[in-house]
Amino acid sequence: MPELILTTYDWVPEPPRGYVRDLRIRWALEEANLPYRVESTPFKDRQADHFAKQPFGQVPWLTEGDKTIFETGAILIYLGECSELLLSRDPAKRLVSIEWMFAALNSMEMASVPWSLFKFFGDTGDTWAPKFFDDWVKTRVKHLEPVLAKHEWVVDTFSIADIALADVLRLINRFNGLEDQPACQAYVERATSRPAFIKAHADQLAHFAAADAHKR
Amino acid sequence: MPELILTTYDWVPEPPRGYVRDLRIRWALEEANLPYRVESTPFKDRQADHFAKQPFGQVPWLTEGDKTIFETGAILIYLGECSELLLSRDPAKRLVSIEWMFAALNSMEMASVPWSLFKFFGDTGDTWAPKFFDDWVKTRVKHLEPVLAKHEWVVDTFSIADIALADVLRLINRFNGLEDQPACQAYVERATSRPAFIKAHADQLAHFAAADAHKR
Repeated sequence: MPELILTTYDWVPEPPRGYVRDLRIRWALEEANLPYRVESTPFKDRQADHFAKQPFGQVPWLTEGDKTIFETGAILIYLGECSELLLSRDPAKRLVSIEWMFAALNSMEMASVPWSLFKFFGDTGDTWAPKFFDDWVKTRVKHLEPVLAKHEWVVDTFSIADIALADVLRLINRFNGLEDQPACQAYVERATSRPAFIKAHADQLAHFAAADAHKR
Repeated sequence: MPELILTTYDWVPEPPRGYVRDLRIRWALEEANLPYRVESTPFKDRQADHFAKQPFGQVPWLTEGDKTIFETGAILIYLGECSELLLSRDPAKRLVSIEWMFAALNSMEMASVPWSLFKFFGDTGDTWAPKFFDDWVKTRVKHLEPVLAKHEWVVDTFSIADIALADVLRLINRFNGLEDQPACQAYVERATSRPAFIKAHADQLAHFAAADAHKR
């Protein structure tokens, strides 16, 4: 198996640290005990070779030999197919994992990322949109609550669906969007207590902190 | 193979007609020549049996025997695995399709759906958010333009990635968001000229029109 290389930005400002999407891939790689190394691409001056790897100029992407994969959802499925620790070989369980990955990325995050912008940017002077997105996120987490009250993980055992869903909920929780949803909160707590998450999170913070140190 | 049943709302208001997400699944089923029938679930009064099938109270879901699948992304992958007409059996091509499905649903649509709300609702009195989302969608389609200028379809042949991406772009195009992107426009034109799309679209419109007729 050729070496796995995860590419992320060389630096990001303070607010997104701990939330940059390479985290989802670091987490999966740690869960599966797959060796990898991290490379950097400029955050501030994104060049053509970046867009050749990631057409939208985002991060991360994963390289394995001459293969490059972008989009965290696609990378998670790819790694899931490399390791049973991330995705069950049972067709029914595999399907539920994939279902919930899309639920996290297309149903939950489509509401929560716009919502989080208003939290990041503070008072924008708008009145309609902050309320609209707040209602949207609240409806989503309200429907998620009974599901997570019944399940330790989305399928029986931890899978890529939990990486996607817990990371989406973690951002909602950062801005107190899970206040009325104890099962969602407990799920985030469970997920982020896993040694693989703790290492992935610490490694991302260290990566960006090292960039600061290098600048001084 | 047990019968495939696609469930959508019994009725929706005029504006979303032609854009309800069952369209993506109808389109895939038509492309693959898979026989199916359509069932309805109440739009206005969503009951527990709806949330049991689709935890967020959305549509569609697909039933096959005792199996129920929700999330259009997951259903498209499932159907792709049923039919080579939707997803290549070549691992590298399959990966590119899955990559671009996530690009459509998690990178493009996360910007375009919030953006479309301001188009649907007209002047909300907000000033910051409409501009923010407009810039976001413009940046995304600007980066997509050179990719689609070089490819007839995302992979060599039509796949589930094109269903997801073309349907996302179709909504952007509805509100003139592709004005400066001729390759994106031509791609939407190519995709929506396919007989499978034309039938899927006409069938969805007829389904909701029949509900109107039934009410009178």
